[in-house]
Amino acid sequence: MRRTVRQLADGREIIYFDENPDTAPRTVADTRDIPPVQPGSEIRRDPLTGEWVAMAAHRQTRTYKPPANACPLCPSTPEYATEIPEHDYDVVVFENRFPSFAEGVPDLPSTVDGLPMVPRAGGVGRCEVVCFTSEHERSFGELSAARVRTVLDVWADRTTALSEIPGVRQVFPFENRGEEIGVTLQHPHGQIYGYPFVTPKTERMLRVAKEYRAEHGSQVLGDVLAAERAHGERVLVSSRYWTAFVPPAARWPVHVQLAPHRQVPDVPALTEAERDDFAVVYLRLLGMLDGLYDRPLPYVAGWNQAPVYEGRDLAWLHLEVLSVLRARDKLKYLAGSESGMAVWVNDSTPEQIAQRLRCAGHGG
Amino acid sequence: MRRTVRQLADGREIIYFDENPDTAPRTVADTRDIPPVQPGSEIRRDPLTGEWVAMAAHRQTRTYKPPANACPLCPSTPEYATEIPEHDYDVVVFENRFPSFAEGVPDLPSTVDGLPMVPRAGGVGRCEVVCFTSEHERSFGELSAARVRTVLDVWADRTTALSEIPGVRQVFPFENRGEEIGVTLQHPHGQIYGYPFVTPKTERMLRVAKEYRAEHGSQVLGDVLAAERAHGERVLVSSRYWTAFVPPAARWPVHVQLAPHRQVPDVPALTEAERDDFAVVYLRLLGMLDGLYDRPLPYVAGWNQAPVYEGRDLAWLHLEVLSVLRARDKLKYLAGSESGMAVWVNDSTPEQIAQRLRCAGHGG
Repeated sequence: MRRTVRQLADGREIIYFDENPDTAPRTVADTRDIPPVQPGSEIRRDPLTGEWVAMAAHRQTRTYKPPANACPLCPSTPEYATEIPEHDYDVVVFENRFPSFAEGVPDLPSTVDGLPMVPRAGGVGRCEVVCFTSEHERSFGELSAARVRTVLDVWADRTTALSEIPGVRQVFPFENRGEEIGVTLQHPHGQIYGYPFVTPKTERMLRVAKEYRAEHGSQVLGDVLAAERAHGERVLVSSRYWTAFVPPAARWPVHVQLAPHRQVPDVPALTEAERDDFAVVYLRLLGMLDGLYDRPLPYVAGWNQAPVYEGRDLAWLHLEVLSVLRARDKLKYLAGSESGMAVWVNDSTPEQIAQRLRCAGHGG
Repeated sequence: MRRTVRQLADGREIIYFDENPDTAPRTVADTRDIPPVQPGSEIRRDPLTGEWVAMAAHRQTRTYKPPANACPLCPSTPEYATEIPEHDYDVVVFENRFPSFAEGVPDLPSTVDGLPMVPRAGGVGRCEVVCFTSEHERSFGELSAARVRTVLDVWADRTTALSEIPGVRQVFPFENRGEEIGVTLQHPHGQIYGYPFVTPKTERMLRVAKEYRAEHGSQVLGDVLAAERAHGERVLVSSRYWTAFVPPAARWPVHVQLAPHRQVPDVPALTEAERDDFAVVYLRLLGMLDGLYDRPLPYVAGWNQAPVYEGRDLAWLHLEVLSVLRARDKLKYLAGSESGMAVWVNDSTPEQIAQRLRCAGHGG
């Protein structure tokens, strides 16, 4: 894989990842006249729950469902300049023009209005966009195994790079897919957030993992994984290095965890063999997902990685995939119980979800 | 207020709350031929986050957007029998026909498939529906102050009653309003959940309140409230007994907390004067919400109450109101950061939200 770093017209970084090292050099300049990004986000800690919340008021103006011929993630053409100056690419990463977190955000007073119980800081970090293919009409599940492997290597590259940025405490690569969950750009792409704090979800998982290890002397996800593989009822795909299963307390109508059989803190720690195997397993899983309702499934897929500086022996890398679609044309909404009390009520059991997904895998 | 307890044809309880004690007695019988409710939900604890999740597979068949002339929450007519046998009512409460939690659910093995890290139990508890008015086309914000006061008394009555059910650990009265958040019945109504566990949200708040009190010797919400009232920028309505403010780390595009000035654990602990005052303050707040985009705002409003058996000196009652609408016709979706990592990214600052709501209150 060849890696070429360039700059966009407004100074943002763009990185081309080419599968064939003999591809012509990436030299096309960005000729657009675009203003520099004005990062202006901040973070505040909720005094009642202790959780950090980000505020990015400048993002209200972000691109919203452009027509297909104005897709900013397609390669540029002589007629239309996009975010990617080159006329083709394999996988490309660039800094988000409307970032929730960015380097160089202004310093802020350390509390909101001097309230000591509401800590605040600039939204330091980095937000990147990852385009998985130059083909606008594709989806991740239609990529070749070789391309999925490339994307995984890119996630590893970016996890390492973002972890080195001062202030970044956790790196989160994810993909949102589908209009139903608010995706404003159809082109197959994901995002990577470098957060300036350990996320509330990861904080909870580390606390549980720590308590579990103190009591049992083992890793909770390792023990869950072993039990799921032995029992089998919620397992969707299992290979030499990976198992995908519906979690035993699934909260979403479609909810899958895909974990390596070995404890590793993050994507960069995966071996060559584990990476090759991931590509095959994940494509099988995505086939099940699109087969479930016989339509492209809207989903969120995100990597649970260890924070940069802590819990690296406690966190167990896994990809979590979830969907809000509870029937072909029915959404699960976050209503009072979910948004008010953080209690998810699932209309299906994990065993039902697993059975439907396995059937979808055979039928589709 | 007169209280009449009756039974529906399938054995569920229905309770009429009449503002005028001279109303004719509530004696109309439910003549429908409906099968008994088969409660079948269960709860499982997520082994990775430690949070309880509910599964209610029998709810997939629940009533979904019936036509207005088949509303199950309107009073019955000679032609059409609804959930409420009487031909009119003030406020009425009945057990949900499709409950997420119920008394008499079957016992279950104490772990999922013998996995000790996945505790499980029957979904013991109770789910009730509260109809705020017999008028189908009304909304909560259009009720009289006297009716809001009645509803508050009903919430108090039900909090006390549900707290006495063996197994119920927390009572959560809430209202979901608007199709955008999945409300399937238009008739103005709310719900009350009696949960068999302390909710994850409340657990987090109690942990933070406990740490805060150990460090500062005071209540965190009390200190926030005092600071907000002194500062004023995020305050929406303030009266003798209550203040409504946009929380200083607001995570939703519209996000309000309405708290009494005195620490009380739950609605039953409010005085007569506090209850009367609440009705006035809440109606002013709801006027701001509907004025914001000059349309009925979809929202979730829920009471944060102390658990039944613990933290009753630490919890500080407050109503939380939130909306997913970030512009008149744009929803905030829970995408990768929110649903994957529990990090909310708000496109507005709390100060902007407060300013817009105050303007809406003057204009509307």
